[in-house]
Amino acid sequence: MNKIAIGAKNGLYPSLTTIVGAQRDGKPNWITIAHIGIMNHAAGDIPQYLSIGLSKSHYTNKGIHDHGEFSINIPSQKMMELTDYVGLVSGDNVDKSALFKVARGGLENAPMIADCPLSMECRLKETVVLGHHEIFIGEVVGTYIDEACLTEGKPDLKKIDPLLFDMMMVDYWSIGERTGKPWRAGMALKKR
Amino acid sequence: MNKIAIGAKNGLYPSLTTIVGAQRDGKPNWITIAHIGIMNHAAGDIPQYLSIGLSKSHYTNKGIHDHGEFSINIPSQKMMELTDYVGLVSGDNVDKSALFKVARGGLENAPMIADCPLSMECRLKETVVLGHHEIFIGEVVGTYIDEACLTEGKPDLKKIDPLLFDMMMVDYWSIGERTGKPWRAGMALKKR
Repeated sequence: MNKIAIGAKNGLYPSLTTIVGAQRDGKPNWITIAHIGIMNHAAGDIPQYLSIGLSKSHYTNKGIHDHGEFSINIPSQKMMELTDYVGLVSGDNVDKSALFKVARGGLENAPMIADCPLSMECRLKETVVLGHHEIFIGEVVGTYIDEACLTEGKPDLKKIDPLLFDMMMVDYWSIGERTGKPWRAGMALKKR
Repeated sequence: MNKIAIGAKNGLYPSLTTIVGAQRDGKPNWITIAHIGIMNHAAGDIPQYLSIGLSKSHYTNKGIHDHGEFSINIPSQKMMELTDYVGLVSGDNVDKSALFKVARGGLENAPMIADCPLSMECRLKETVVLGHHEIFIGEVVGTYIDEACLTEGKPDLKKIDPLLFDMMMVDYWSIGERTGKPWRAGMALKKR
């Protein structure tokens, strides 16, 4: 082994910082979540499933259980202060419903954030319990984007300017530059 | 709604490109996976759980089922060509066992890649089936890092230089710069 052991640490960083929206007791509530996952690749009539991992102690969880719906919003770098704040205070003590202008799609109980460049509304598919966390797996039923963040009709990460998250040194990061093309960068080796 | 609807698309990008290692029929096999997830936050005696989503059609899956073990390796930007190649060809047709120098930790059937800056060995906790995919949830039992990628004893993303993945415009991306501190950036708002 040419590497050194550092214990059973999570090294799967950076992840993407999101703000999860849910309806709780008649009001929207928001929580910052960067422990997220892409479950599968949607194809044909198979939908896209995403996961969000929330400690059972959070105020938001009951809203997701009550309605089986939530939203995942991608904040931009310029929303860092408010995004971080939403993760610092709990809906148990602070009413966060008015912090963002609310956007609504097709689901009644998946409030989205109007000012986030990209938002997805999700229907709860199943919940996996692991330790102190509930992992909510949702089916994406609608995706909405600020038109200014599209390039040739596709979501452009440089324009979205996402807030990347690292818990190893505890930093937010920006995205860098395009460096290559998946399914092409290795093609020369395949042809060899 | 100030945003435009683009259908039920996955907008949870960038994700992190990994190479998953498994032992199949007595040999290591490798597959590129960027549909990954962080399930929870490890605390006390609660371990860290991570997910990898693999289409049922892949050669690797049987190795994970047979042994209940796998590895997650983080390649650097300079490993892009080989990383991409490993995702272009299947173990059904190509013996990929000799592509990387193998490193072994505590698990017998979780081969790791010596040249990746960071590797984790995982024990399969449970499998969630969603559409055509098997989502393998693993418990991290050991994490190994190239000592040159540490700063003050912690894994440094600038030194790891990970390969970020975007399926919306189909690009690899580099990581940018540190832009702020989680749990601090929003503190002024909390005190207000």
